[in-house]
Amino acid sequence: MSKSDDTATVREANLSFYRAFESLDRASMEDIWSKDAPVMCVHPGWPKLRGWDVVMGSWERIFDNTSMMQFTITEAEIAVDGDLAFVVCTENITSVTDGRVSEAKVQATNIYRRRDGQWLMVHHHGSPVL
Amino acid sequence: MSKSDDTATVREANLSFYRAFESLDRASMEDIWSKDAPVMCVHPGWPKLRGWDVVMGSWERIFDNTSMMQFTITEAEIAVDGDLAFVVCTENITSVTDGRVSEAKVQATNIYRRRDGQWLMVHHHGSPVL
Repeated sequence: MSKSDDTATVREANLSFYRAFESLDRASMEDIWSKDAPVMCVHPGWPKLRGWDVVMGSWERIFDNTSMMQFTITEAEIAVDGDLAFVVCTENITSVTDGRVSEAKVQATNIYRRRDGQWLMVHHHGSPVL
Repeated sequence: MSKSDDTATVREANLSFYRAFESLDRASMEDIWSKDAPVMCVHPGWPKLRGWDVVMGSWERIFDNTSMMQFTITEAEIAVDGDLAFVVCTENITSVTDGRVSEAKVQATNIYRRRDGQWLMVHHHGSPVL
Protein backbone atom coordinates (compact mmCIF):
# COMPACT_ATOMS: atom_id res chain seq x y z
CA MET A 1 0.00 0.00 0.00
CA SER A 2 1.17 3.52 -0.70
CA LYS A 3 1.85 6.06 2.04
CA SER A 4 -1.34 7.97 1.16
CA ASP A 5 -3.40 4.74 1.34
CA ASP A 6 -1.92 4.11 4.81
CA THR A 7 -2.81 7.63 5.90
CA ALA A 8 -6.36 7.15 4.63
CA THR A 9 -6.84 3.88 6.53
CA VAL A 10 -5.45 5.42 9.74
CA ARG A 11 -7.80 8.39 9.31
CA GLU A 12 -10.68 5.92 8.94
CA ALA A 13 -9.57 4.04 12.09
CA ASN A 14 -9.45 7.33 13.98
CA LEU A 15 -12.99 8.21 12.89
CA SER A 16 -14.11 4.72 13.96
CA PHE A 17 -12.74 5.45 17.44
CA TYR A 18 -14.85 8.60 17.68
CA ARG A 19 -17.91 6.79 16.32
CA ALA A 20 -17.42 4.16 19.05
CA PHE A 21 -17.03 6.98 21.59
CA GLU A 22 -20.31 8.55 20.39
CA SER A 23 -22.08 5.18 20.57
CA LEU A 24 -21.53 5.19 24.37
CA ASP A 25 -21.39 1.41 24.04
CA ARG A 26 -18.60 -0.63 25.64
CA ALA A 27 -18.73 -3.42 23.03
CA SER A 28 -18.33 -0.92 20.16
CA MET A 29 -15.40 0.67 21.98
CA GLU A 30 -13.77 -2.75 22.59
CA ASP A 31 -13.92 -3.44 18.83
CA ILE A 32 -11.52 -0.67 17.91
CA TRP A 33 -8.81 -1.49 20.53
CA SER A 34 -5.88 -3.86 20.11
CA LYS A 35 -6.38 -7.25 21.76
CA ASP A 36 -2.70 -8.32 21.66
CA ALA A 37 -0.77 -5.24 22.83
CA PRO A 38 -0.80 -3.65 26.30
CA VAL A 39 -3.35 -0.84 25.98
CA MET A 40 -3.11 2.52 27.74
CA CYS A 41 -5.39 5.50 28.12
CA VAL A 42 -5.19 9.01 29.58
CA HIS A 43 -8.59 10.72 29.88
CA PRO A 44 -8.50 14.52 30.26
CA GLY A 45 -7.11 15.35 33.71
CA TRP A 46 -6.77 11.68 34.69
CA PRO A 47 -3.59 9.77 35.45
CA LYS A 48 -2.60 7.03 32.99
CA LEU A 49 -4.65 3.82 32.92
CA ARG A 50 -3.03 0.58 31.76
CA GLY A 51 -4.38 -2.81 30.78
CA TRP A 52 -7.54 -4.02 29.09
CA ASP A 53 -9.84 -4.33 32.11
CA VAL A 54 -8.89 -0.97 33.62
CA VAL A 55 -9.12 0.90 30.29
CA MET A 56 -12.43 -0.70 29.25
CA GLY A 57 -13.83 -0.19 32.74
CA SER A 58 -13.04 3.53 32.44
CA TRP A 59 -14.99 3.77 29.18
CA GLU A 60 -17.91 2.03 30.81
CA ARG A 61 -17.92 4.56 33.68
CA ILE A 62 -17.75 7.49 31.23
CA PHE A 63 -20.55 6.00 29.12
CA ASP A 64 -22.70 5.37 32.22
CA ASN A 65 -22.49 9.05 33.16
CA THR A 66 -23.09 10.45 29.69
CA SER A 67 -26.38 10.58 27.81
CA MET A 68 -25.07 12.16 24.58
CA MET A 69 -21.67 12.91 23.10
CA GLN A 70 -20.87 14.33 19.68
CA PHE A 71 -17.40 14.85 18.22
CA THR A 72 -16.19 17.11 15.46
CA ILE A 73 -12.55 16.28 14.76
CA THR A 74 -10.36 19.05 13.41
CA GLU A 75 -6.67 19.56 12.61
CA ALA A 76 -5.92 15.84 12.40
CA GLU A 77 -2.22 15.23 11.72
CA ILE A 78 -1.41 11.64 10.81
CA ALA A 79 1.98 9.91 10.78
CA VAL A 80 2.56 6.30 9.75
CA ASP A 81 5.75 4.28 10.11
CA GLY A 82 5.54 0.59 9.34
CA ASP A 83 2.84 -0.93 11.53
CA LEU A 84 2.61 1.93 14.01
CA ALA A 85 0.72 5.16 13.40
CA PHE A 86 -0.35 8.13 15.43
CA VAL A 87 -2.91 10.86 15.04
CA VAL A 88 -2.76 14.23 16.81
CA CYS A 89 -6.13 15.94 16.55
CA THR A 90 -8.52 18.33 18.24
CA GLU A 91 -11.80 16.99 19.59
CA ASN A 92 -14.62 19.56 19.57
CA ILE A 93 -17.16 17.97 21.87
CA THR A 94 -20.80 18.59 22.65
CA SER A 95 -22.00 16.39 25.48
CA VAL A 96 -24.84 15.89 27.90
CA THR A 97 -23.77 14.71 31.36
CA ASP A 98 -26.20 14.56 34.29
CA GLY A 99 -28.71 16.53 32.19
CA ARG A 100 -26.32 19.42 31.50
CA VAL A 101 -25.16 20.31 27.99
CA SER A 102 -21.52 21.33 27.68
CA GLU A 103 -19.05 22.21 24.97
CA ALA A 104 -15.39 21.30 25.33
CA LYS A 105 -12.17 21.23 23.38
CA VAL A 106 -9.80 18.34 23.97
CA GLN A 107 -6.36 17.82 22.47
CA ALA A 108 -5.80 14.16 21.61
CA THR A 109 -2.94 11.88 20.66
CA ASN A 110 -4.15 8.49 19.42
CA ILE A 111 -1.76 5.64 18.64
CA TYR A 112 -2.69 2.67 16.44
CA ARG A 113 -0.96 -0.58 15.63
CA ARG A 114 -1.64 -2.58 12.45
CA ARG A 115 -2.37 -6.30 12.77
CA ASP A 116 -3.66 -8.37 9.85
CA GLY A 117 -4.31 -5.21 7.86
CA GLN A 118 -6.39 -3.57 10.59
CA TRP A 119 -5.38 -0.48 12.58
CA LEU A 120 -6.29 -0.94 16.24
CA MET A 121 -5.87 1.56 19.05
CA VAL A 122 -3.12 0.91 21.60
CA HIS A 123 -3.08 4.31 23.35
CA HIS A 124 -5.40 7.28 23.69
CA HIS A 125 -4.29 10.49 25.40
CA GLY A 126 -6.81 13.29 25.75
CA SER A 127 -6.09 16.54 27.56
CA PRO A 128 -8.16 19.63 28.29
CA VAL A 129 -7.39 22.81 26.36
CA LEU A 130 -7.53 25.41 29.12
CA MET B 1 19.21 -5.16 17.78
CA SER B 2 16.95 -7.10 20.08
CA LYS B 3 13.64 -5.78 21.36
CA SER B 4 15.10 -5.21 24.81
CA ASP B 5 18.05 -3.25 23.33
CA ASP B 6 15.53 -1.09 21.45
CA THR B 7 13.59 -0.47 24.63
CA ALA B 8 16.80 0.52 26.43
CA THR B 9 17.80 3.02 23.72
CA VAL B 10 14.31 4.56 23.70
CA ARG B 11 14.42 4.86 27.51
CA GLU B 12 17.76 6.63 27.15
CA ALA B 13 16.32 9.00 24.50
CA ASN B 14 13.41 9.76 26.82
CA LEU B 15 15.79 10.60 29.67
CA SER B 16 17.77 12.82 27.29
CA PHE B 17 14.57 14.76 26.56
CA TYR B 18 14.06 15.44 30.28
CA ARG B 19 17.73 16.36 30.72
CA ALA B 20 17.31 18.88 27.87
CA PHE B 21 14.13 20.14 29.56
CA GLU B 22 16.02 20.60 32.86
CA SER B 23 18.85 22.42 31.07
CA LEU B 24 16.37 25.22 30.18
CA ASP B 25 18.51 25.69 27.06
CA ARG B 26 16.96 25.89 23.58
CA ALA B 27 20.01 24.44 21.80
CA SER B 28 20.01 21.35 24.05
CA MET B 29 16.29 20.91 23.42
CA GLU B 30 16.76 21.25 19.64
CA ASP B 31 19.34 18.42 19.75
CA ILE B 32 16.83 15.78 20.83
CA TRP B 33 14.11 16.61 18.23
CA SER B 34 13.79 15.20 14.72
CA LYS B 35 15.01 17.53 11.99
CA ASP B 36 13.33 15.68 9.09
CA ALA B 37 9.80 14.93 10.32
CA PRO B 38 7.02 17.43 11.09
CA VAL B 39 7.29 17.95 14.85
CA MET B 40 4.33 18.54 17.17
CA CYS B 41 3.94 19.46 20.80
CA VAL B 42 1.11 19.79 23.33
CA HIS B 43 2.16 21.53 26.54
CA PRO B 44 -0.16 20.98 29.55
CA GLY B 45 -3.41 22.86 28.89
CA TRP B 46 -2.19 24.25 25.55
CA PRO B 47 -3.58 23.54 22.10
CA LYS B 48 -1.34 21.59 19.71
CA LEU B 49 1.71 23.31 18.25
CA ARG B 50 3.11 22.18 14.91
CA GLY B 51 6.34 22.84 13.05
CA TRP B 52 9.92 23.43 14.09
CA ASP B 53 9.83 27.21 14.64
CA VAL B 54 6.58 27.20 16.60
CA VAL B 55 7.58 24.23 18.80
CA MET B 56 11.11 25.50 19.50
CA GLY B 57 9.75 29.00 20.14
CA SER B 58 7.42 27.54 22.77
CA TRP B 59 10.34 25.89 24.58
CA GLU B 60 12.21 29.18 24.53
CA ARG B 61 9.24 30.98 26.13
CA ILE B 62 8.91 28.27 28.81
CA PHE B 63 12.66 28.38 29.53
CA ASP B 64 12.64 32.21 29.70
CA ASN B 65 9.98 32.07 32.43
CA THR B 66 11.53 29.27 34.47
CA SER B 67 14.57 29.49 36.69
CA MET B 68 14.70 25.83 37.76
CA MET B 69 12.98 22.62 36.73
CA GLN B 70 13.62 19.10 37.98
CA PHE B 71 11.98 15.92 36.70
CA THR B 72 11.54 12.55 38.30
CA ILE B 73 10.09 10.19 35.69
CA THR B 74 7.98 7.32 36.94
CA GLU B 75 5.82 4.57 35.46
CA ALA B 76 7.47 4.76 32.02
CA GLU B 77 5.84 2.35 29.57
CA ILE B 78 7.79 1.92 26.33
CA ALA B 79 6.62 0.43 23.05
CA VAL B 80 8.78 0.04 19.95
CA ASP B 81 7.65 -0.97 16.46
CA GLY B 82 10.22 -0.67 13.69
CA ASP B 83 11.52 2.88 13.62
CA LEU B 84 8.74 4.41 15.68
CA ALA B 85 8.51 4.25 19.46
CA PHE B 86 6.44 5.85 22.16
CA VAL B 87 6.79 6.34 25.87
CA VAL B 88 3.90 6.97 28.25
CA CYS B 89 5.22 8.25 31.57
CA THR B 90 4.50 10.40 34.57
CA GLU B 91 6.54 13.57 35.11
CA ASN B 92 6.93 14.52 38.76
CA ILE B 93 8.11 18.11 38.51
CA THR B 94 9.62 20.58 40.94
CA SER B 95 9.99 24.00 39.36
CA VAL B 96 10.69 27.61 40.15
CA THR B 97 8.74 30.10 38.04
CA ASP B 98 8.67 33.82 38.83
CA GLY B 99 10.34 33.06 42.16
CA ARG B 100 7.67 30.57 43.27
CA VAL B 101 8.43 26.91 43.92
CA SER B 102 5.77 24.48 42.75
CA GLU B 103 5.27 20.75 42.53
CA ALA B 104 3.25 19.26 39.68
CA LYS B 105 2.37 15.93 38.15
CA VAL B 106 2.10 15.75 34.37
CA GLN B 107 1.06 12.77 32.27
CA ALA B 108 3.17 12.55 29.12
CA THR B 109 3.13 10.72 25.82
CA ASN B 110 6.41 11.07 23.94
CA ILE B 111 6.88 9.74 20.39
CA TYR B 112 10.29 9.08 18.86
CA ARG B 113 11.42 8.19 15.36
CA ARG B 114 14.71 6.41 14.62
CA ARG B 115 17.01 7.86 11.95
CA ASP B 116 20.56 6.60 11.44
CA GLY B 117 20.38 4.68 14.70
CA GLN B 118 19.28 7.66 16.78
CA TRP B 119 15.85 8.09 18.40
CA LEU B 120 14.64 11.65 17.95
CA MET B 121 11.43 13.18 19.30
CA VAL B 122 8.64 13.90 16.83
CA HIS B 123 5.80 14.58 19.31
CA HIS B 124 5.46 15.47 22.97
CA HIS B 125 2.07 15.58 24.68
CA GLY B 126 1.97 16.66 28.31
CA SER B 127 -1.27 17.05 30.27
CA PRO B 128 -2.05 18.12 33.82
CA VAL B 129 -3.18 15.46 36.29
CA LEU B 130 -6.03 17.24 38.06
